[in-house]
Amino acid sequence: MEKYLITGFSGFVSKHFLDFLGSREEKCSVLGIDVHPPTFKFNSSSHLNCEFIDLNLLDKDAVQNVLYQFQPNYLLHLASYSSVSFSWKNPILSFQNNTNIFLNILEALRLNNLQVRVLSVGSSEEYGNVEPKDIPLREEHSLRPVSPYAVARVAQEMLSRIYGEGYGLDIVLTRSFNHIGTGQNETFVIPSFAKQLVEGWMRGEKEIKLTTGDLTVVRDFLDVRDVVKAYYALLKKGRKGEVYNVCSGRGLSLAEIVKMMVEKLQVRCMTVTDKRLVRPKDNMVITGSNQKIKNETGWFPIVELETAMQDILIDWKERLKV
Amino acid sequence: MEKYLITGFSGFVSKHFLDFLGSREEKCSVLGIDVHPPTFKFNSSSHLNCEFIDLNLLDKDAVQNVLYQFQPNYLLHLASYSSVSFSWKNPILSFQNNTNIFLNILEALRLNNLQVRVLSVGSSEEYGNVEPKDIPLREEHSLRPVSPYAVARVAQEMLSRIYGEGYGLDIVLTRSFNHIGTGQNETFVIPSFAKQLVEGWMRGEKEIKLTTGDLTVVRDFLDVRDVVKAYYALLKKGRKGEVYNVCSGRGLSLAEIVKMMVEKLQVRCMTVTDKRLVRPKDNMVITGSNQKIKNETGWFPIVELETAMQDILIDWKERLKV
Repeated sequence: MEKYLITGFSGFVSKHFLDFLGSREEKCSVLGIDVHPPTFKFNSSSHLNCEFIDLNLLDKDAVQNVLYQFQPNYLLHLASYSSVSFSWKNPILSFQNNTNIFLNILEALRLNNLQVRVLSVGSSEEYGNVEPKDIPLREEHSLRPVSPYAVARVAQEMLSRIYGEGYGLDIVLTRSFNHIGTGQNETFVIPSFAKQLVEGWMRGEKEIKLTTGDLTVVRDFLDVRDVVKAYYALLKKGRKGEVYNVCSGRGLSLAEIVKMMVEKLQVRCMTVTDKRLVRPKDNMVITGSNQKIKNETGWFPIVELETAMQDILIDWKERLKV
Repeated sequence: MEKYLITGFSGFVSKHFLDFLGSREEKCSVLGIDVHPPTFKFNSSSHLNCEFIDLNLLDKDAVQNVLYQFQPNYLLHLASYSSVSFSWKNPILSFQNNTNIFLNILEALRLNNLQVRVLSVGSSEEYGNVEPKDIPLREEHSLRPVSPYAVARVAQEMLSRIYGEGYGLDIVLTRSFNHIGTGQNETFVIPSFAKQLVEGWMRGEKEIKLTTGDLTVVRDFLDVRDVVKAYYALLKKGRKGEVYNVCSGRGLSLAEIVKMMVEKLQVRCMTVTDKRLVRPKDNMVITGSNQKIKNETGWFPIVELETAMQDILIDWKERLKV
C-alpha cells in the first residue's frame, strides 16, 4: 500500500488532493502534518487511511522522527507561507516557513536514508519581473525573484537541486501558478472577490461594492482539482531533478474574472480600488507554458473556468449561510 | 567619528581589516561581534576605539539591540560558516549560519530604520560549475550553486537585492575569491600546506610528506591585505546594490603554490593525495575578473604572491615555535 506524507495538510490544496486520492481505487495511506488541525473533515474509507499529526516543520527533530516512523513512498510538500505581501511585512517568518522548513525535511530524508519521492512545490513568483516577450513563461527562463517570498522559493529550489545531485534524493519540482477553487483562504484575490459579491448578493444589494487591487493584471489561474492531478502525475511520472510549471497556459485579467462572477450571480457591481491592494512593481501579465508537464506526464487541465467560478460561488453561498 | 560594526570579528579577515584601519589616520570606532572572542589582540589606540561583544547572529533580538545601540555607519559582514565541505556534512547549520544570520541583520536594520552602508560578503562559490570559456568569471555570469554553502550565499545575495530594492537598504555585495594570509585557519588549503611544510622543516626532515587534495586545480588567490582594502574601497565607493568580484584576476595551481613554498623553505617534499580531500565534481579552474572593482573604486591588488607566501611561512614558524 502506498504511503503519502502531506505537509501543509490543513490547506485547501491538500483537501483537494485527498478528494482526488479518495476518488481512485488504489488503496493508500496518508499522514498529514501541519501546525493547525484541518478545518475540513477527512474520513478514512475502505481504501484511504488518513491521519493527522500536529507538527511544526521548524522542529527538525520532530520532522526526522515522523518521517522515520511513517516511511512514506511519496512526500507532497504543500506547507508554505505563500503570501507575497506577508513576506514583505515579515521576511524572517516567510523565509523560515518556506526555505528552512523544506531544508529540515530534506535533511531528515538524507539522515534517515529514506527512499522517498518528493514533490517540492514552488511558485511562479520565482520568475520575478518578466518582459512581455517572455510570456508564456517556460521552465528554462531565468529566475529573478523580487519579493522575500520569491527568494525563499528560489532558495528552496536550489536546495532541491543540491540534495538531488549531491545526495541522490529523488525530488521533482514545480513552479505553480495561481490556483482557484473551493476552500481557498479569502486573503487570496479570487475568494476575496467571490466572498464580497456573494455577501452583497445575499443582502440583495442593487449594486455591490467590490474592493479590489489592480484589475488589469493578467494571471494564469488553474483549478485546484487540476493542480492536484498535476501533482499526482508528477509524483508518479515526473523526472527526478526536473522542474515543471503547473499552470493552465491561459491568461485572464482580474477584471474578466469579476465580470464572469457578476454574470453568474446576476448582480451589478461597482469596483473600488484600494491602493493598499495594488502591489508596487508587479508584473502586468504572468502566464506559463504547460507543455513540459503535458508532454512528459500526459496530464492536461480539464476543469473549465466557468465551472471553477460557478463552484467557488456556490461554495461561498454555503459558507456564508447563517 | 565613523563607526564600523564587524560581524565574524574573530576571523582572520577581520584582524587584517583592523590592521588596515589602524594604519590610517582617520579616527574611528569599531564594534566587533562573534560567537567566540578573538584569539588576536586588538588594542584601542588614539584614533581607533575597538570593542568586542559575544553575540550569536541567530539571536535576532540581540542583533536588533546591538545595532540600535551602536548605530554604525558601516557594517562589514564577515560572519560565515564558509567551508564547502562542512556544508555537505551539515547543510542546516551552514544555511543558518550564512543565510539566516544575514537575514537577521538586514531585518534589524530595516526595523530600526538605520542608515548603514552594508558590505555583504559573498563567495566565488556562487558561480558554481563553469566552463573554461567563462574564465575569468565576470559579475554578470549566471549563478549555478553546486554546494549547500553556495546555495546559502546565493540566497544571501538575493536577500540583499530584495532589501535594497524593496526597502531601500544601502547594500554593496561581493563575490570574494580565495584569500591567503597570516592567521588563516588551517582547515583551508594554503595554511594546511604551510603548516605541514614548516613542521617538517622544523623537524629537519630531508623529504617532507605533504598530504594534499587535487593539486592541479587552479584558483584565484588574493592576499588578505588586498582583500580588506577592497572591502574598505567598496564600503566607501561601491555602488549601492551592485556586486563586485574581489579577486586577483590571476590563476595559480595548488602545485605551483606548493613549489613556491618548498623553494622558500629550501626543503624537498613528497606529496600524498588524500582522496577525502579531493572534491567530487570540483571546477578545475576558477579565476575572476576584477575589472569592475578596479574601474569603479580605483582599488587594485598590491601584495605580490611571493611576499604573501613568505609572510605565511614566517607566521607558521612563529605559531609553531615552542
